[in-house]
Amino acid sequence: MNTEDLLNQIAFIKEIDKVKYIQRKTKLFNSDRCENDAEHSWHLALMAIVLAEHSNEPIDILKVVKMVLIHDIVEIDAGDVFMYDTVKNHDNTDEERLAANRIFGLLPKKQSEDFIAIWEEFEAGETNEAKFARSMDRLEPLLQNTSNNGGTWKEFNVKYDKVYEKKSVIRNGSESIWNYAEGLINESVEKGILEK
Amino acid sequence: MNTEDLLNQIAFIKEIDKVKYIQRKTKLFNSDRCENDAEHSWHLALMAIVLAEHSNEPIDILKVVKMVLIHDIVEIDAGDVFMYDTVKNHDNTDEERLAANRIFGLLPKKQSEDFIAIWEEFEAGETNEAKFARSMDRLEPLLQNTSNNGGTWKEFNVKYDKVYEKKSVIRNGSESIWNYAEGLINESVEKGILEK
Repeated sequence: MNTEDLLNQIAFIKEIDKVKYIQRKTKLFNSDRCENDAEHSWHLALMAIVLAEHSNEPIDILKVVKMVLIHDIVEIDAGDVFMYDTVKNHDNTDEERLAANRIFGLLPKKQSEDFIAIWEEFEAGETNEAKFARSMDRLEPLLQNTSNNGGTWKEFNVKYDKVYEKKSVIRNGSESIWNYAEGLINESVEKGILEK
Repeated sequence: MNTEDLLNQIAFIKEIDKVKYIQRKTKLFNSDRCENDAEHSWHLALMAIVLAEHSNEPIDILKVVKMVLIHDIVEIDAGDVFMYDTVKNHDNTDEERLAANRIFGLLPKKQSEDFIAIWEEFEAGETNEAKFARSMDRLEPLLQNTSNNGGTWKEFNVKYDKVYEKKSVIRNGSESIWNYAEGLINESVEKGILEK
């Protein structure tokens, strides 16, 4: 083994502890406590493993798990951007790319390149794995908001059309999960926790 | 797709949110805030992926990742037991097995059996994957305690011999990581943050 590689890997492992301090807008299930990025990423990883059979296309589940485990690490430098933010762009800004280079750059060169490539693939959302990973990322807060009487939809006055548009990304990963999710969105309108 | 399976999987996904409320004794890096089981499990999963090359034996890394992602789910019912607890047994109690049956039992039958088998394999600690997963579980709090001037060692008056014995499990997963860990333990004594 290469001791220098191990020390660089340990430096990365220490650095990413900061992910545990990044607060999302969305609350835990049936809760008023905000979720942090580490908790969110753990949940997505298990969701991906549990729901893999529902993917529209065959997927390399290890790659999907890597994607969701690392997808928010760039927020250590770039911060969390709320899904329904109307000012700041959510996706793949220069700020996020700089963050990816700095943080994954702590790892040995080959590993650093691999992690950046996986993060870029998730952001681009074009491969089967990225589509499924992104569908998990949209499903979790939908489940949370419906468990919290509307949650961030009510808190930030987000309407049905916007929710439907953002959540329909789930369909790219899984038609069957989308059927379920679409039902949840429509039920939310009926229950009065999402405004049309 | 089978709608009933999906609904059972969603029930499991909601249930495991409770892992985010289970506080460990160990604090985050350079911090006085306790880590919770979801944050801990996320960190172990990434550590396993990053450090896989140091495993003594070839490993199925997806299985290792599954192990560390689910290893603390039983604590929803059974609670966290501190590594250095002198009264309560840490490993695989009847209480934990009951919890595994209840919580993983929310999943469709075949998936439930798979998850319980992986959890049992982790607990038994005999396969290459379990050995490596368990070495990650011992490494993280060592890194945290050394970043926290002794952390739980000082707080609960845990001495060198006990730490050395518990941490030497790392060697079963990785000789090279153990070399590094052993150095950290000895340095901790020299720095006065771990008593001999």
